[in-house]
Amino acid sequence: MLDNPYYSQDAHGPWQIFNAGDFELELGGVLRDLKLAYAVHGELNAARDNAILVPTWYSGTSKVMEQLFVGAGRALDPAHYCIIIVNQIGNGISSSPHNIDGAQAMANFPRIQIGDDVRAQHRLVTEIFGTEKLALVFGGSMGAQQTYDWAVRYPAMVARAAPLAGYAKNTDHDRLFVESLIEAITSDPHWNNGSYRSHLDVQAGLKRHARLWSVMGWSTEFYATERWREFNFTSCEQFHREFMEPFFTPLDPNSLLCMARKWQDGDVTRITGGSLEAALGRITAHTFVMPISTDMFFKVEDCAREQPLIKNSQLRVLNSVGGHLGLFGFEPEFLAALDANLRDLLALK
Amino acid sequence: MLDNPYYSQDAHGPWQIFNAGDFELELGGVLRDLKLAYAVHGELNAARDNAILVPTWYSGTSKVMEQLFVGAGRALDPAHYCIIIVNQIGNGISSSPHNIDGAQAMANFPRIQIGDDVRAQHRLVTEIFGTEKLALVFGGSMGAQQTYDWAVRYPAMVARAAPLAGYAKNTDHDRLFVESLIEAITSDPHWNNGSYRSHLDVQAGLKRHARLWSVMGWSTEFYATERWREFNFTSCEQFHREFMEPFFTPLDPNSLLCMARKWQDGDVTRITGGSLEAALGRITAHTFVMPISTDMFFKVEDCAREQPLIKNSQLRVLNSVGGHLGLFGFEPEFLAALDANLRDLLALK
Repeated sequence: MLDNPYYSQDAHGPWQIFNAGDFELELGGVLRDLKLAYAVHGELNAARDNAILVPTWYSGTSKVMEQLFVGAGRALDPAHYCIIIVNQIGNGISSSPHNIDGAQAMANFPRIQIGDDVRAQHRLVTEIFGTEKLALVFGGSMGAQQTYDWAVRYPAMVARAAPLAGYAKNTDHDRLFVESLIEAITSDPHWNNGSYRSHLDVQAGLKRHARLWSVMGWSTEFYATERWREFNFTSCEQFHREFMEPFFTPLDPNSLLCMARKWQDGDVTRITGGSLEAALGRITAHTFVMPISTDMFFKVEDCAREQPLIKNSQLRVLNSVGGHLGLFGFEPEFLAALDANLRDLLALK
Repeated sequence: MLDNPYYSQDAHGPWQIFNAGDFELELGGVLRDLKLAYAVHGELNAARDNAILVPTWYSGTSKVMEQLFVGAGRALDPAHYCIIIVNQIGNGISSSPHNIDGAQAMANFPRIQIGDDVRAQHRLVTEIFGTEKLALVFGGSMGAQQTYDWAVRYPAMVARAAPLAGYAKNTDHDRLFVESLIEAITSDPHWNNGSYRSHLDVQAGLKRHARLWSVMGWSTEFYATERWREFNFTSCEQFHREFMEPFFTPLDPNSLLCMARKWQDGDVTRITGGSLEAALGRITAHTFVMPISTDMFFKVEDCAREQPLIKNSQLRVLNSVGGHLGLFGFEPEFLAALDANLRDLLALK
C-alpha cells in the first residue's frame, strides 16, 4: 500500500466501506476483498423508493460529486432523496492498485470493466440499502458509462437515468484518445510497468497526461475566449501549470490506468452479445441523454446516435464553453441547466 | 548527416537547391549555408507575373504538395502558372537538423521562425526567378502560416493569398496541442536530447506522436462514419497501425521538432509589434481564408476572427469530414471545392 494523501478521508471523505468480498470479474478471475467506498446524503424513505445513485468519473471522488451536484435547493437535495455516491473501483478510494496489499497490488491489479462496478454497486444497493428501485442513476463521463450499464443491465431497477457527457458504447475515436492518455503515463520510465515506489516518481508522465487534458479536455473556444481568467489566472500557460498540472499530478498513476482501460472498454453491448439496438432497447428508464455542446470526445453527434435507440428518452444538450471539462461546473448557468433537466426528469412518472 | 531514405530525391524529388548562404535568423544568430530545396512546375511568362508560391506544411514535402494540388486541369495548372513549391526549413529536405554536418547539426540546429522561411523564400523568388510579384501564395496548415507571413511582410509582392487550414496568429490551444506533439517525441529516452544515431532509435516517441495525430488530426465524425474504410482498412486500429504510424515513423524526430516549434511560434504580429489589427491591416492581397469545417485545432471559429481584419478577404469554409487531415485530399469533392475557390481567387484583379 502506497501512501498518497490525495485519497485521504480528510481530503475526500467522509465515506463508508461496503465489503463485497472476493468479487468475480467480467474478464475472468477474482478481485480479492473488494471494498467499495460510498457516501450517503439524505435518508431512504419508508417506501425505499427515493434512492439516487451517483457513480464517479475518471479521477473523481465521492467528495467531488457531492460538491458539484448535491445540496439544499439543488436537484439532488438530501432533504428529498437518499443520494448514494459510490467511488468506482480503481479510483484510489474504493479498492485500487495502490491502496491494497498482497498479490493483486500495483502492477498486479486485475483489469476492471464498467460492468464490474455496476454489479458491485448492485450488491451495495440491494444488500446495504435493501432497495430494488433507484429513482435515478446520474453520472457524468465514466459515470455516464456506469449509468448506461445500470439501465441496460438492471432495467427494472432504474426508474430514471441521466447520462451526462458519456457514451453507452465507446467510440473508436475516444478509445484512441484514451490510449494517448495511457501512453503519456506508461512512457515514463519511472512508471516501471506499474511498480513504482511513489506517484511522485512518475511526475513526468503525469504531467504529460495533464497536458493532454489541457488539449482535449477544454474546448478551443474556452481558450479563444480566455475563460481560464475565471479561475484567476493571467495566462493560458499559468492555467496549465498551476491548475491542470496540480489537478492531475497528485493522482496515482496505476489508478488512472485502471480507470482509463475501463473507460476504453465501456460498451453496454457486452450485455447483449454485440447489438447496440438490443442493449439500449432493454432500457425502460426515463432517460435524459445530456452531451455537452463543446465536448471534444464525448460528442453531441455521437450521443445523438445512441439516444433514439432508448424508448423513453430525450436528447438534452447542455451548453458550455468548457468542452468536456464543463463538467467542473465553472459556469453557474451550466449547473442551473443541469439541475433543471434533473428536476424535469425526476418529475416524470 | 544521418541517412534517412524518406527524404531522398527518389522518394520526394526532383528538387533544386537555392544556396542562401549564411542566413540571419529572427531569433538571433545565423544558420550557416542555408539550402532551400524547391521544385518548379510550369514556366515564368514574359511579364514575370504568373508565379505561384506554395510552401509546405508540417511533415510535407514539395512532392506531396505537387501530388495534391498541381496538375493539368487543376487550379494550379503548370500550363498557365509557374508554380514554385518550396520546402520549409527543417522539413528534412531543405536544411534540417539531420541533413547537415558541422556545428549546427542535430541537437544544435537553431530555432527557426516562420519569418525565417518567408525571408529566405523572398530571396529565392527575387534572386532566382527575378520577380517582384507573386500571382498567389497558397499553403495549408504551416503553409498557411507562411502564406499569412508573406502577405503581411511583403504586401506589395502578394497579389493573392490563400491560407488553407491555418492561422495568422497561433492560438493558445494550438500551442498546447503542439506541445503535446513535442512531448510525445522528447519523452523517448532514445531521443537523447536530439543526439540519436538513427530515427529508428526513436520509434517509440514517433509512435506516440502518430497517436496524437490519429486523435486530433482526423475528426470524430471521420471515425464515427468509418471513413478510414476509404483507405482500404477494415478497422480503426488497423488504420492507425498501418496508415498513421507508417506515415509518421519514417520521419526524422529533430526535423519534426524544428517544425513543431516554428508552428507554435507562428504569429504575424511579430512584424507589427504585437498588433494583429495592424499586421492583417497591411495585407493588400485578395485573400481567401479557408478553414476546414471539422478541423479540431485550426478551427473555423478562430479563422473567422482573423478574416474580417483583412481588407480584401472572404471566408470560404471547406467542407470535409476529415478534420485537419482533410488536407490529405481523400475526398474528391474537397479538392474540387478547393480548386473552385482558387480559380475564383485567381480571377480577381
